[in-house]
Amino acid sequence: MRREDHGLAFMLQFENVAWYESGSVKILDRRIYPTRIEFVTCKTHQEVAQAIADMVTQSAGPYTAASMGMALAADECKKLNKEQQVNYLKEAAYRLSHARPTTVNRMTLIVNNCIDIAVKAMEAGKAVDEAIFLHTVESMNRRYSKIEEVAHHLVPMFPSKGNVMTQCFGETIVGMMLRVAKEKKKDIKLFCPETRPYLQGARLTASVGHDMGYDVTVITDNMPAFTMKTKGIDVFTSAADSICLDGHIVNKVGTMQIAIAAHYFDVPYFVTGIPDEALQSIDQVKIEERNPDEVTEFRGIKTTLEGVKGYYPAFDITPPKLISGVVTDRGIYSPYDLKRYYEENTENYW
Amino acid sequence: MRREDHGLAFMLQFENVAWYESGSVKILDRRIYPTRIEFVTCKTHQEVAQAIADMVTQSAGPYTAASMGMALAADECKKLNKEQQVNYLKEAAYRLSHARPTTVNRMTLIVNNCIDIAVKAMEAGKAVDEAIFLHTVESMNRRYSKIEEVAHHLVPMFPSKGNVMTQCFGETIVGMMLRVAKEKKKDIKLFCPETRPYLQGARLTASVGHDMGYDVTVITDNMPAFTMKTKGIDVFTSAADSICLDGHIVNKVGTMQIAIAAHYFDVPYFVTGIPDEALQSIDQVKIEERNPDEVTEFRGIKTTLEGVKGYYPAFDITPPKLISGVVTDRGIYSPYDLKRYYEENTENYW
Repeated sequence: MRREDHGLAFMLQFENVAWYESGSVKILDRRIYPTRIEFVTCKTHQEVAQAIADMVTQSAGPYTAASMGMALAADECKKLNKEQQVNYLKEAAYRLSHARPTTVNRMTLIVNNCIDIAVKAMEAGKAVDEAIFLHTVESMNRRYSKIEEVAHHLVPMFPSKGNVMTQCFGETIVGMMLRVAKEKKKDIKLFCPETRPYLQGARLTASVGHDMGYDVTVITDNMPAFTMKTKGIDVFTSAADSICLDGHIVNKVGTMQIAIAAHYFDVPYFVTGIPDEALQSIDQVKIEERNPDEVTEFRGIKTTLEGVKGYYPAFDITPPKLISGVVTDRGIYSPYDLKRYYEENTENYW
Repeated sequence: MRREDHGLAFMLQFENVAWYESGSVKILDRRIYPTRIEFVTCKTHQEVAQAIADMVTQSAGPYTAASMGMALAADECKKLNKEQQVNYLKEAAYRLSHARPTTVNRMTLIVNNCIDIAVKAMEAGKAVDEAIFLHTVESMNRRYSKIEEVAHHLVPMFPSKGNVMTQCFGETIVGMMLRVAKEKKKDIKLFCPETRPYLQGARLTASVGHDMGYDVTVITDNMPAFTMKTKGIDVFTSAADSICLDGHIVNKVGTMQIAIAAHYFDVPYFVTGIPDEALQSIDQVKIEERNPDEVTEFRGIKTTLEGVKGYYPAFDITPPKLISGVVTDRGIYSPYDLKRYYEENTENYW
């Protein structure tokens, strides 16, 4: 089952999804990309959960990894009876969905879908791991086409010639947005804050933009506000790890700070993605704190004295008043009007 | 001429000034401190200018280094006749004062004072290098006692128990502020953004605070806004490379962004320092852009693809509307009322 067979080939450069094949899940190690292209090979679904917890992949990567992890779990338990298999898959689902606290809701939705697929496959006497794998690929393709629609709504917000600031790595949407912007002959330059401590902005967003032929400038995370002033940023855009129906969005730490600066300098901020139906309010989201040592070092090099603490909230919360619009596959919604998305739209996104 | 002979011993830990001795100027290399304690030894005043340009020292360090560089220049030309010596010193003064574009005004003031001292020493038949050296030490001590007064005006703005956020390395004022806060029994915790690309916040401010027994937490530069929200920051404070009489201040890039966030979260922002009499308006200040490679790497490790650009404005400009007060040796001034400082105060600060 090669990537190309599933119409995903072009995505590799900016998504690098996880992939289930013959008893293992391979995940591109985004922690070191693009310095080196290496894959983490997980032999068990527990290893997949650990890889997600260890930030081997980010953005939508963990969703695909978890779903592929369910295919692997199905392979692990295939010799048990049906009831035992379902129980095994439920345990695997819990472990995979709870690998990172901020995304438990969406993850649970995804792994539960896999269990439904598994039950149907068992009833039909089909190979369960393959059924989950094919379901995952189908979901990815459905998601890609939705994200392409998101890009078609976002790109008209860009000037015909100007500067766009990004934050962290918006993954598929970044590539789609740049592809559509090129089709629409937008002459834009990208400014990418580096996004410490993992540097997704420098390593991933900037690299994808450069690969796709754009003029890309990396800045450190203390420079977005001054860059808005000196370079004339026309639009700030980011994806989101969660979009709550009350208009608060959760994204990589630093997003709120740039949104505050954008608001100060009258730069519009567009969030891309699909509102989370399960998240009525920001109160349902727990912001993950990660290992503080990651803040007091850079790739293992200590940056301060032993004994100084670190604080590492992985995400932050941007309130609706700082958001100009939430760009979905169905158009641009006011952050104060997100419930309408589901009133109009009953299709399952994942 | 040992440090201790001049009452400066206690300053070493947080200032690490440049020091002229027997034909050379030694400057503590703050680019690698506190990982290693190493000094750059400059054998000529040109090397001193280069060390300043290369960011061996920051904050007030370059002023001391330039002044000590003038002592070294005096030693270099001591065999010439008086007129030739004065011409030689004028050339050295130009080179030293123009080592970094943002501070040319204040630097020029400092090196011109050294020329005046040199002329007087020649007329009195004294060793010119020693005269400049002693003048430099005297200026430092005068500055230290002024900065102590600044600290005495700043610390009452801190809560008796709470959290203070800093930016970059305020140098002498950081140590003084922490010493006075301790005397006044303020129970404060420090939050220090790391300050990429040179990490002065992590390496210097956090280390000084930790050395002095404070509870110090380092955050990356994308976290100040969210930390204000989650940790309850009571006061944001920074020094400034330039304080213009029109109320705009120039400080390490990132300061404006934190000031915007502080304003958003109603956290007061106090700038410490003495207004620059020569800077009537921000229009007189040129913001230095440094080598963009420093932004796209970390201690020599590339963080993005070859071909991606970097942008490195070393400083940014914070407008008066974001500043709660300018804390001087004479008290706290409104940023809109800085001219009064010189109407009331005719003493030469440097």
